[in-house]
Amino acid sequence: MTVLSPNAATTMAWQDSPWFQPAAAAVDAKTKPLGALGQLEALAVQLACLQRTLTPVTDRARVVVFAGDHGVADDGVSAYPKAVTAEMMRNFARGGAAICVVSRSVGAELEVVDVGVDADLSGLDGVVHASVRRGTRNMRHEPAMTRDEYEQALQVGRDAAHRAHAAGMHVIALGEMGIGNTTSAAVLTSALTHGEPNQTVGRGTGVDDARYAQKREIVREILARHNTVAGDTAALLAATGGFEIVAMAGAAMQAAALGLVVLVDGYISTAAILAATRLDGNVRAACVFAHRSPEPGHAIALAALNASPLLSLDMRLGEGSGAALAIPLVRAAARMLTEMATFASAGVSVAEPA
Amino acid sequence: MTVLSPNAATTMAWQDSPWFQPAAAAVDAKTKPLGALGQLEALAVQLACLQRTLTPVTDRARVVVFAGDHGVADDGVSAYPKAVTAEMMRNFARGGAAICVVSRSVGAELEVVDVGVDADLSGLDGVVHASVRRGTRNMRHEPAMTRDEYEQALQVGRDAAHRAHAAGMHVIALGEMGIGNTTSAAVLTSALTHGEPNQTVGRGTGVDDARYAQKREIVREILARHNTVAGDTAALLAATGGFEIVAMAGAAMQAAALGLVVLVDGYISTAAILAATRLDGNVRAACVFAHRSPEPGHAIALAALNASPLLSLDMRLGEGSGAALAIPLVRAAARMLTEMATFASAGVSVAEPA
Repeated sequence: MTVLSPNAATTMAWQDSPWFQPAAAAVDAKTKPLGALGQLEALAVQLACLQRTLTPVTDRARVVVFAGDHGVADDGVSAYPKAVTAEMMRNFARGGAAICVVSRSVGAELEVVDVGVDADLSGLDGVVHASVRRGTRNMRHEPAMTRDEYEQALQVGRDAAHRAHAAGMHVIALGEMGIGNTTSAAVLTSALTHGEPNQTVGRGTGVDDARYAQKREIVREILARHNTVAGDTAALLAATGGFEIVAMAGAAMQAAALGLVVLVDGYISTAAILAATRLDGNVRAACVFAHRSPEPGHAIALAALNASPLLSLDMRLGEGSGAALAIPLVRAAARMLTEMATFASAGVSVAEPA
Repeated sequence: MTVLSPNAATTMAWQDSPWFQPAAAAVDAKTKPLGALGQLEALAVQLACLQRTLTPVTDRARVVVFAGDHGVADDGVSAYPKAVTAEMMRNFARGGAAICVVSRSVGAELEVVDVGVDADLSGLDGVVHASVRRGTRNMRHEPAMTRDEYEQALQVGRDAAHRAHAAGMHVIALGEMGIGNTTSAAVLTSALTHGEPNQTVGRGTGVDDARYAQKREIVREILARHNTVAGDTAALLAATGGFEIVAMAGAAMQAAALGLVVLVDGYISTAAILAATRLDGNVRAACVFAHRSPEPGHAIALAALNASPLLSLDMRLGEGSGAALAIPLVRAAARMLTEMATFASAGVSVAEPA
């Protein structure tokens, strides 16, 4: 029963880990036909490699939602007014938003971080106040943030990963809120994959045909304006990112360094992770991709990361909602490896030769 | 915001419910772009219709695994010997099988029912003893069960649904164990959909090429032998079902009558549900399909039911493992409708006109 299952054997970032082959063998020894738990098996092997154990534990999870506003939102790239970011922060704080409900439902903690909402939220309880600036500058005309602001936003993310680790979390699920941020995700994905804006720009929360055409044109303009920094990921993030996107990249880098599982949500989170993997080669092995967005650019970003998400529920909300829904799958994968009986321990017959 | 989202508006069994339009409107009023929660939205509407409320609750779930042996397993249709069914019952009772681990992991109860395993399990604790017979007869040569045995197995399923309801469950997830039972699922799916055995027969737990060809030939033989009862679902189930398949059909019919959500696992469970819907027109509206199996026949059975499963994780284990993994999604869908704020209640701006 030492044959590696097809899924477990997929070429991935953690395949060179000394834990890879023992973990794959341990999965194959469990009381089930070889490979019968599909993607859960590959996930269990990844978790074993990440935690350097054949008995991984992923029970404790925290969803962290980073929120920031985008200067480019003034140019009509979203179906919603910019004020919605701040309104949703109040909704998060009161527990009424989708991610609040889903986090409670799966038994995960939720932390919401203001890393740059264009509003004074200092009086709002239940939110981490770490605002770098009230929204980015309009990247259509100038860099979205200075290098110093970029470093601050990165640190806001790193701090969130440290808090999660200190609180005993095994999993950090990254989410975001920011009207206009699919535009930033499209710019980053195009710049980092050389993808055409026709393929990386989608309808976001639901723009109509006219705004959709305008959004593509704006993304082309932004790419041309910031073309000189396309090869420098940090400079690219500063020029075209959002504060929430940079914070997610910082959180992912720090979480990977701390051995946390990083659960990645949809298009915007994946764009942040794609940038983070260019900055830090250790990020990819910590990442579990949760949900396939219908945004066309998401497939491009995922392909560049050799990633295949666990869920595909036609969701396009963000807030970390897809990542939160995948938390039970990550728990089940770890418990499968840690708790399931083996053919030997259970006295179950193996498959007979034909 | 009263526009029905595309998903919620899909033509389904519950669309004529007086709760359909109010539930769809309630989903659309939640603080999220229209349709942004994808399949969760359609699921929430279904749950509202089933429970006849705009605040559905699906927190309490029980997985019920029905186990039975198959006379046809003596003819080498499986990669595993028949003894594995009884061995796995002991593994279930000790808590070491995949479904034990997944059920614990998602916070669901687990009940295992011996409805016809070919072994004396009377001394085994932690199992419901309701054996109709020690395995079915070989349907290649004769009807798998008598009409009386069929009725007994159906009642075993109905009893399980009653127990779940009496214990305060909102959801019953149906699973099975029975070496050889993908053969029965293929026969039933072919007979009920007029599907070719080339399309309904798969490799089950993993037979090799020679056994796969033999399995297709055996399914053709069985279909020819029992051709006269193909139009009578009850007689067809008695002739070609397994005790565990008939019990799942009985459980689904009773659970639907009691207002429980029926979570359907993979190919074998879906074949049982397909038969149950022919016996009882109320079954379909109670069913949530959990996981898309790679077994080719599953797609045919699902299409006949107009069903699109929530998960697609390349799993092919049975035991209710796919159904159990979908329990958190069903919980999240109900809580979304019950707990999320509306644009009005949260004071969040709606999408602005272009």
